[in-house]
Amino acid sequence: MNPVIELLQSHRSIRKFTGEAISEELLQQLLRAGQSAATSSHVQATSIIRVRETTKREAIAELAGGQAYVADCAEFLVFCADMKRVFDASERAGTEPRRGMTEQFIIATVDTALFAQNVAVAAESAGLGICYIGGVRNNPEQISEILALPRDVYPVFGFCMGMPDQDPEVKPRLPLEVIVKEDTYSDDGEATEIAAFDRTMADYYQRRSSNRKAARWSAQISVLFAEKTRPHMRDFLGKRGFELK
Amino acid sequence: MNPVIELLQSHRSIRKFTGEAISEELLQQLLRAGQSAATSSHVQATSIIRVRETTKREAIAELAGGQAYVADCAEFLVFCADMKRVFDASERAGTEPRRGMTEQFIIATVDTALFAQNVAVAAESAGLGICYIGGVRNNPEQISEILALPRDVYPVFGFCMGMPDQDPEVKPRLPLEVIVKEDTYSDDGEATEIAAFDRTMADYYQRRSSNRKAARWSAQISVLFAEKTRPHMRDFLGKRGFELK
Repeated sequence: MNPVIELLQSHRSIRKFTGEAISEELLQQLLRAGQSAATSSHVQATSIIRVRETTKREAIAELAGGQAYVADCAEFLVFCADMKRVFDASERAGTEPRRGMTEQFIIATVDTALFAQNVAVAAESAGLGICYIGGVRNNPEQISEILALPRDVYPVFGFCMGMPDQDPEVKPRLPLEVIVKEDTYSDDGEATEIAAFDRTMADYYQRRSSNRKAARWSAQISVLFAEKTRPHMRDFLGKRGFELK
Repeated sequence: MNPVIELLQSHRSIRKFTGEAISEELLQQLLRAGQSAATSSHVQATSIIRVRETTKREAIAELAGGQAYVADCAEFLVFCADMKRVFDASERAGTEPRRGMTEQFIIATVDTALFAQNVAVAAESAGLGICYIGGVRNNPEQISEILALPRDVYPVFGFCMGMPDQDPEVKPRLPLEVIVKEDTYSDDGEATEIAAFDRTMADYYQRRSSNRKAARWSAQISVLFAEKTRPHMRDFLGKRGFELK
């Protein structure tokens, strides 16, 4: 296994950081690595808000569900799906764009995720730790206001980055056989595989170095989707120009 | 700049492949690297269809817009956002999940994109080339039928992988200053920066080794969004269980 693949397979989220700063030079390298990811039809439908002001960090940490590391990490980035830039460029080129399409939402969301994952890999290659903050979608309207996000831009996730001050275990993943199917979708044998994975996860949670608990994957998932997941998202997106037509 | 960051910054899509196969061992390593990417609340809402049958490859190549490399590459994967697995697991755990939420669509789409980008990086680290195929969303219904995708699963993109038989230039990206904003969204100076980028791209298209053309970025973008982008996507997703509530 080559060192890059080893690096990729050793990812774990970092939620505790030393106070050490990231140099501007390294930060630029990481962001350029992010930009180099594939982008649908070269649209590059991503913007990043680098949040430096302490008050904004603290407000977002709270709005994202009380995640203190949002305030504590060396760099906190909000990755935004951004259709505004391309719509503006279209208008300057003399064409009125057809806005609000579901497909544009997919393009911008996927572009943004690919960009972020390259930043994640680049950061980890430099010895940094990262953590995605999906919690920015807990209160996307307030967070959009704090960052003055305009129409046709929405915050997909936050992203903490810094020098790790913890060394957590790598979290198990579902067996590859459950994920990868040949030629045709099939879930044969899946229930059995997942029952085994439930035991793997229960064991992991019992053994890990911090935050031990009794939990099975299926039970955790079922709690997550027992209630409507972030039910405000549809309206929020609509108000922001992502009408999902 | 470390070798991983160099690798990330050297990405370009590959659309012509030698016939060389990828060993099963390497393929497993790449897919495990993909699995190791972050996943929202550990849901792992991704499935991959590895398409091996020639007739399926050829049909998808055609449906994705006549992209012959879908048939020719060593491995063609269809990355699917998959909520079915977690809904099924929830039901087995005794809880009826609340389906069809927009937020679930975001979770599964982002999970899938992060997974794929890790596979891309892993593949490139092993000397392979890759190309994302957003064209699977040209005819997602037919492609879903070919792959027998069930409800709560949709094909986000295809993914070609193989030994490169071409050496294209790295494509320029927007200036980082346009992408990254500090504390607040601002588009000050953007029109000027993009006018300069339009000239950069016109120059790139004139100079590159193949498929030379006269094109400015803004003009290309404006054509792309002058018509409704893939207007079937909303209905397609709705029929597949992604009602975007």
